[in-house]
Amino acid sequence: MLLAKVIGNVWSSKKKDAIAALRLLFIQPLGGNMKPEGGVLIAADEVGAGFGELVIVTQGTPAMQSFGRDEPVPVDAVVVGIVDNLEMDDAAGGKRK
Amino acid sequence: MLLAKVIGNVWSSKKKDAIAALRLLFIQPLGGNMKPEGGVLIAADEVGAGFGELVIVTQGTPAMQSFGRDEPVPVDAVVVGIVDNLEMDDAAGGKRK
Amino acid sequence: MLLAKVIGNVWSSKKKDAIAALRLLFIQPLGGNMKPEGGVLIAADEVGAGFGELVIVTQGTPAMQSFGRDEPVPVDAVVVGIVDNLEMDDAAGGKRK
Amino acid sequence: MLLAKVIGNVWSSKKKDAIAALRLLFIQPLGGNMKPEGGVLIAADEVGAGFGELVIVTQGTPAMQSFGRDEPVPVDAVVVGIVDNLEMDDAAGGKRK
Amino acid sequence: MLLAKVIGNVWSSKKKDAIAALRLLFIQPLGGNMKPEGGVLIAADEVGAGFGELVIVTQGTPAMQSFGRDEPVPVDAVVVGIVDNLEMDDAAGGKRK
Repeated sequence: MLLAKVIGNVWSSKKKDAIAALRLLFIQPLGGNMKPEGGVLIAADEVGAGFGELVIVTQGTPAMQSFGRDEPVPVDAVVVGIVDNLEMDDAAGGKRK
Repeated sequence: MLLAKVIGNVWSSKKKDAIAALRLLFIQPLGGNMKPEGGVLIAADEVGAGFGELVIVTQGTPAMQSFGRDEPVPVDAVVVGIVDNLEMDDAAGGKRK
Repeated sequence: MLLAKVIGNVWSSKKKDAIAALRLLFIQPLGGNMKPEGGVLIAADEVGAGFGELVIVTQGTPAMQSFGRDEPVPVDAVVVGIVDNLEMDDAAGGKRK
Repeated sequence: MLLAKVIGNVWSSKKKDAIAALRLLFIQPLGGNMKPEGGVLIAADEVGAGFGELVIVTQGTPAMQSFGRDEPVPVDAVVVGIVDNLEMDDAAGGKRK
Repeated sequence: MLLAKVIGNVWSSKKKDAIAALRLLFIQPLGGNMKPEGGVLIAADEVGAGFGELVIVTQGTPAMQSFGRDEPVPVDAVVVGIVDNLEMDDAAGGKRK
């Protein structure tokens, strides 16, 4: 999964029915130094994440299958958790954050 | 999903039967600053997106499963929505767009 | 999907039975300027693509499922169409190709 | 799979029920020279990996399916093994590590 | 699939049961010029590939499904063939290798 920050919203009225009820967020993946790393993604929100919050994002088929629906949902990224706390060293050791 | 802009069309007559009826678009993924980020992709259009429109693109198995067909469709990117409106900050905060 | 150019062939005699009958091509993905973008891939040919032709390549599970077989085929990239014609602008507008 | 180093932990209380019992680790993928390569990921721990250990990480649907559960787990990266020993040359030959 | 070179081995005793019997190799993906391109991966060997050999590597769900087992194998990269011969031009034409 990716560590990411919620940085916005996107709205679409002309879209596939299967994603009609979803709340879509822009999320910016973050790297080891908590700085942006990699491109902005659009993720469906399943946990009520708010603007600026740190979140955990699952991608691909596991994201699609997080919805408890009979028909497939064409979504490839989902916010599955809001981060309460974290600790991270850089790979070389040393810096606690 | 990716935020992207429709930048063209591609036509193929010699192709797998399963994709015969699909409209195939070139899309350019966009980053946090609304500038191109990452390579051009070919996506099947499921919502009637037009040239120059901002769209939401789903990739991978979730894209394939957006088609309501019995047999699998060998497509790994689909336009699932046309963007009406968006708001995005950069990850460091501040700039509304 | 990716726009790509067929740039070669690869042969393997010691391989998984499930891919024994497949024709394997080297393909070079192309970007918005029709120049190489991203690394060379090996794709199974399903449409009779020839050396130097522009093709459409599907990746991942959708590629695997393009084969009409009962048992899974361990292939993650397939040429699904040969390009007849294309038109592409760059994302900033302007240049038709 | 990826060779990676465990560099931290992340906690979330507001999350999808399906991932409620999982231990989530920050892992830093390592390249051929055993230096960080690619961005930090969050992976579910299935083998009891500790801080600083070298691990093997599986991504995507195969990661999701490593859980022996009836309902899908929306997880796209899992630590599937702790590295005991390794030997690696660089691709040009020569350096044993 | 990727063209890659076998550059090492990795051993793990504390791992998921489902991958217990697999031989795990370090492989270095190669680009159009036969030089390393992209990061080192760990792939399960299904064809008896040896150190230094050129191989074909399948990733993702198609890799997982290359195993003829009832229960899923949490593996996202598999060596599916050993290269006997290859020919590759660069995308701009010209250089045969």
